[in-house]
Amino acid sequence: MKVGILGATGYAGQELVRLLHRHEEVKELYLGSSSVAGENYDSIYPHWLDQNIGILEDENIPDMDVLFCALPHGLTAERTSAFLERGIKVIDLGADFRLQSAESYEEWYKIKHPAAELLKEAVYGLPELYRQEIKGKSLIANPGCYPTATLLALVPLLRKRLLQTEYLIIDAKSGVSGAGRGISLGMHYSEVNENFKAYGVASHRHTPEIEQELSRAVGSPLTVSFTPHLVPMTRGMLVTIYAKVSEGVGEEELRSCWQNQYENEEFVHLLPPGTWPQTKFSSGSNHAFLQLTLDKRTGNVVIVSTIDNLLKGAAGQAVQNMNLAMGWPEAQGLKGTALWP
Amino acid sequence: MKVGILGATGYAGQELVRLLHRHEEVKELYLGSSSVAGENYDSIYPHWLDQNIGILEDENIPDMDVLFCALPHGLTAERTSAFLERGIKVIDLGADFRLQSAESYEEWYKIKHPAAELLKEAVYGLPELYRQEIKGKSLIANPGCYPTATLLALVPLLRKRLLQTEYLIIDAKSGVSGAGRGISLGMHYSEVNENFKAYGVASHRHTPEIEQELSRAVGSPLTVSFTPHLVPMTRGMLVTIYAKVSEGVGEEELRSCWQNQYENEEFVHLLPPGTWPQTKFSSGSNHAFLQLTLDKRTGNVVIVSTIDNLLKGAAGQAVQNMNLAMGWPEAQGLKGTALWP
Amino acid sequence: MKVGILGATGYAGQELVRLLHRHEEVKELYLGSSSVAGENYDSIYPHWLDQNIGILEDENIPDMDVLFCALPHGLTAERTSAFLERGIKVIDLGADFRLQSAESYEEWYKIKHPAAELLKEAVYGLPELYRQEIKGKSLIANPGCYPTATLLALVPLLRKRLLQTEYLIIDAKSGVSGAGRGISLGMHYSEVNENFKAYGVASHRHTPEIEQELSRAVGSPLTVSFTPHLVPMTRGMLVTIYAKVSEGVGEEELRSCWQNQYENEEFVHLLPPGTWPQTKFSSGSNHAFLQLTLDKRTGNVVIVSTIDNLLKGAAGQAVQNMNLAMGWPEAQGLKGTALWP
Amino acid sequence: MKVGILGATGYAGQELVRLLHRHEEVKELYLGSSSVAGENYDSIYPHWLDQNIGILEDENIPDMDVLFCALPHGLTAERTSAFLERGIKVIDLGADFRLQSAESYEEWYKIKHPAAELLKEAVYGLPELYRQEIKGKSLIANPGCYPTATLLALVPLLRKRLLQTEYLIIDAKSGVSGAGRGISLGMHYSEVNENFKAYGVASHRHTPEIEQELSRAVGSPLTVSFTPHLVPMTRGMLVTIYAKVSEGVGEEELRSCWQNQYENEEFVHLLPPGTWPQTKFSSGSNHAFLQLTLDKRTGNVVIVSTIDNLLKGAAGQAVQNMNLAMGWPEAQGLKGTALWP
Repeated sequence: MKVGILGATGYAGQELVRLLHRHEEVKELYLGSSSVAGENYDSIYPHWLDQNIGILEDENIPDMDVLFCALPHGLTAERTSAFLERGIKVIDLGADFRLQSAESYEEWYKIKHPAAELLKEAVYGLPELYRQEIKGKSLIANPGCYPTATLLALVPLLRKRLLQTEYLIIDAKSGVSGAGRGISLGMHYSEVNENFKAYGVASHRHTPEIEQELSRAVGSPLTVSFTPHLVPMTRGMLVTIYAKVSEGVGEEELRSCWQNQYENEEFVHLLPPGTWPQTKFSSGSNHAFLQLTLDKRTGNVVIVSTIDNLLKGAAGQAVQNMNLAMGWPEAQGLKGTALWP
Repeated sequence: MKVGILGATGYAGQELVRLLHRHEEVKELYLGSSSVAGENYDSIYPHWLDQNIGILEDENIPDMDVLFCALPHGLTAERTSAFLERGIKVIDLGADFRLQSAESYEEWYKIKHPAAELLKEAVYGLPELYRQEIKGKSLIANPGCYPTATLLALVPLLRKRLLQTEYLIIDAKSGVSGAGRGISLGMHYSEVNENFKAYGVASHRHTPEIEQELSRAVGSPLTVSFTPHLVPMTRGMLVTIYAKVSEGVGEEELRSCWQNQYENEEFVHLLPPGTWPQTKFSSGSNHAFLQLTLDKRTGNVVIVSTIDNLLKGAAGQAVQNMNLAMGWPEAQGLKGTALWP
Repeated sequence: MKVGILGATGYAGQELVRLLHRHEEVKELYLGSSSVAGENYDSIYPHWLDQNIGILEDENIPDMDVLFCALPHGLTAERTSAFLERGIKVIDLGADFRLQSAESYEEWYKIKHPAAELLKEAVYGLPELYRQEIKGKSLIANPGCYPTATLLALVPLLRKRLLQTEYLIIDAKSGVSGAGRGISLGMHYSEVNENFKAYGVASHRHTPEIEQELSRAVGSPLTVSFTPHLVPMTRGMLVTIYAKVSEGVGEEELRSCWQNQYENEEFVHLLPPGTWPQTKFSSGSNHAFLQLTLDKRTGNVVIVSTIDNLLKGAAGQAVQNMNLAMGWPEAQGLKGTALWP
Repeated sequence: MKVGILGATGYAGQELVRLLHRHEEVKELYLGSSSVAGENYDSIYPHWLDQNIGILEDENIPDMDVLFCALPHGLTAERTSAFLERGIKVIDLGADFRLQSAESYEEWYKIKHPAAELLKEAVYGLPELYRQEIKGKSLIANPGCYPTATLLALVPLLRKRLLQTEYLIIDAKSGVSGAGRGISLGMHYSEVNENFKAYGVASHRHTPEIEQELSRAVGSPLTVSFTPHLVPMTRGMLVTIYAKVSEGVGEEELRSCWQNQYENEEFVHLLPPGTWPQTKFSSGSNHAFLQLTLDKRTGNVVIVSTIDNLLKGAAGQAVQNMNLAMGWPEAQGLKGTALWP
């Protein structure tokens, strides 16, 4: 099988290269780039020395089975129909096909959607929640990292009406690699190290994506308070969620709901009561870990969910989606636990 | 003036040594310890070499003006009345005199209060909120770090009834130094570094302290959801708070309330709209920084507050309390902005 | 094939579990421990949840093909002959069989060697330098991390007499995981983070190991100045080496020597001139990276070598040795480049 | 007294602001900048909020007593004579006046020296070694950070001929803040964190500065092997030095030499035997710490020296130089030990 990546020089792109390079079904791997075409991949990432991976001009991407697009928003959508017409399945790690509404996209991303007519063909690629819809699909919107960690925790509970929706507080924390390889003062080592901050307060673009999927789960529109924070570490993502349980719901019921949803899942794990997720549990792997407690003093359930932002939050989930779309074993190329310590 | 410290080998104790060593009013400084009495302080902290600071047996602490106690809970209370009788002012950096109710202390700290009769003599030492009560006092309960960051943000708003109290979500993040110098696997470098986790979920001992003071501000009992997290950095603390504003309250009103409260304060700063606190703004200093926004989509105000957990969250505030108790300029020995970067 | 690990709860042990769990030839994996026998592995490392790996009493380790010993020095040697008699190949990640001289062992490790008679049966397991001797062997001494990084750089050059041996300066830097999972104040997060220090100056136990192998390469005894340092990061090791080149030797000759030695090696890479190794190039992988320059002003060659201390410096190399001993493809279970970023 | 800073927005500049803001002799402080003139300093560094510090157009710097220049090389020299003519003492934190030879400057800095005629008027401002020459001077070249840490260790030993000079190996390690506030991929958080690397191997511009001062100490030209490395931490610098002792010299003699040199120094400390410097001992302070051991096996002395690169390695030493030049107490504004932890 032939597989390609556009945007292979970014961090999510590089993680895709790492995963696909050892994926048993992938026989040929093409990297495309507009800025560094013609170079060898180790001129960007020297540790890829001796692996002989070249970078093509974006325009010269040949026919293939699957194309991953890890590009800034807007750039994927404008080329997608051309790829689909050539019979290439597209998995978009960007934001172009995550929101079903072109209006919402324009409101939050500040550009007109370049291919609104394709939105209805796209599937939201969160396998544990929408597996059947993903199988065999040709256009898959790979979820954002924050939405992935949040939705795995909340969607099952909301589908079963175990939570009230009056207030849903999602306090999220991410390692720095989520901001990508683009340089800026805000990502300068001396400014980030030994520092912790909130950013995008009440305005982060993953908000409408989370709300869309939670509204779908509960069957009516809802809003969430979502605040991302930057943690001085490279990888890892953890979200802490606060919500009021529905009348009469106890901790056991919440836990059972998760258990029913995830007991046969390879990548989602419910920790034993009292053991709280740590981001390192997921680091370098595609695994997610969940925990909750019902605080009887306040009636709030407190939920913690963790993933590796570059694996289950980006490249790992994208490969999982490819496996589903192609009919391969879902965990192909994704085996392995976290790198510890 | 003569000043002493019990528990000078811990991190808060060492920070006190640093501050008091350069404090202009402090002429003699005694360090007491049960475990390393007789040694020179640089046998514990080699960077104190050539400063000639000895450590006394705890029992031999001489008469003095002020004694700081940076001891595990329980140990201060059992000796406090003896110190007070000798005319020594006591500033307790531990938890023994923070809760006004001995029952609450026993419930959360799991021991009988060793000196319940002194609770009514103690003042809660948060100068910006209780300055007049602290002046000249002989027994001061230095607040916990999480409560300090939280109360500076919330108390003025609650006193003015600008927030509803149905749900108050306090999602807190702390650097590792807050856990002290005691070793454990959970504080082992390789387990903490590049890792982020929640701990003490729905059970942290700063919860009743926060609730006591917020209830006092609003005039009736309330509860909060408080979740602390451990950030892979040494210093710094940031809390993100979510609450519903009272009917008709706008962002400007919230901001004005803070401004009225803090405009003449040396150590509490309101950042300009859009600039969010970072823990490094406070690092190595006694300054606190605040910011908020009213999220119109949800009706929630999102508040962020940051301090250095060892300064405004411990030793710095303790020195501020000493200054107030002794009638010295409140910022004596506490001048200086953060160490950056 | 059946494989076991003694000392599976330490960091090197855990890394072995990770590698062996996905190794295609390993059908059964036994973990032994004296302290936590009977528990499930995820009680130690929660991220191994749902993988169902139990821990046996050390004494109950069944017959098997290969046993990895990741134990403190002294503990492996005293049990090795019993294992060998049962037909179990032993790969020791500790120090018991690295030094060929029992006297040297006693001098540096301060205990009498528990099985000096086995020293002549052991092979020093650095595959790139001693591949033929390792094949089929039953007792393999897995090299120390510092020696591995150093010997890969120096042995080829010394074998060819390209360096003088009057002074060999090895300035080494390691991430903290090399110190293992045992807690101590020196490994306490707040003491290590944002800190850098030398340790074991002129006294580290890897010194005689390095000297033994370099002396072997050059054919006569030599000494080295070896200074390890602790870097505030979890993984990674880098050594900087200074030596005087032999009369008339140029940079090209040094480079060619390495190239001849390593051109067919899967795990050792010569970076292009001007690109210097970074520890992250190796992180999470079994790869080593080398670079050098001849400083014409001083006549010294400056060499930099980097590995992941837990992979090529411990568990990865041990698996490579197992593959050689068993006749499997040498890179089995070790494929994959570094985790970046 | 009136004092000014050119280049106040960089890290060394900001550290100067912090030190001078609390310096008792400094009554007026002017900040100059070409890029952000007219703004308030907290628009660059928000933690300076409420301190009311404005930034002037570089050209408008008024008459004053002392001007600190923290500018890229070349920019200070071309304006120095104008400042000197106005009676302003100049302390240059850059490289323009460190090398006494304009040829050497041109060779290493690749530009013609803009004011070679001033070189003979400049003094190399390392107070512990050249105190008498600095007093009252009008043009002071503040030493580089690596040279400071190195020279404090080596100059006294070389002056007394206790070391041979055939080979002097200086293996240096620095925190990231030394690279300044300018952004680049090499300083991007995700590229630096959990990473360690050498840079500028055999080509760093501090080499001729070190050689100049060591040659002066020993009275004849010598060369050194100098390799800097980047440590994943913000502050701190540590150098490890290897040299052969002169015939018959023992460890005690080396130690006495240091002791004689530094026993009355406020900022240079000899640690007790066996206690090795850690960068945190100096962090946030102007103190330097030294240690050595004579390795009898090799005849090499191993020396470790540590400073805070932004204090004793830049702004702290600059203030020390100002105090000397102005006849104020040398430690004015520099009191205080390291921030720990």
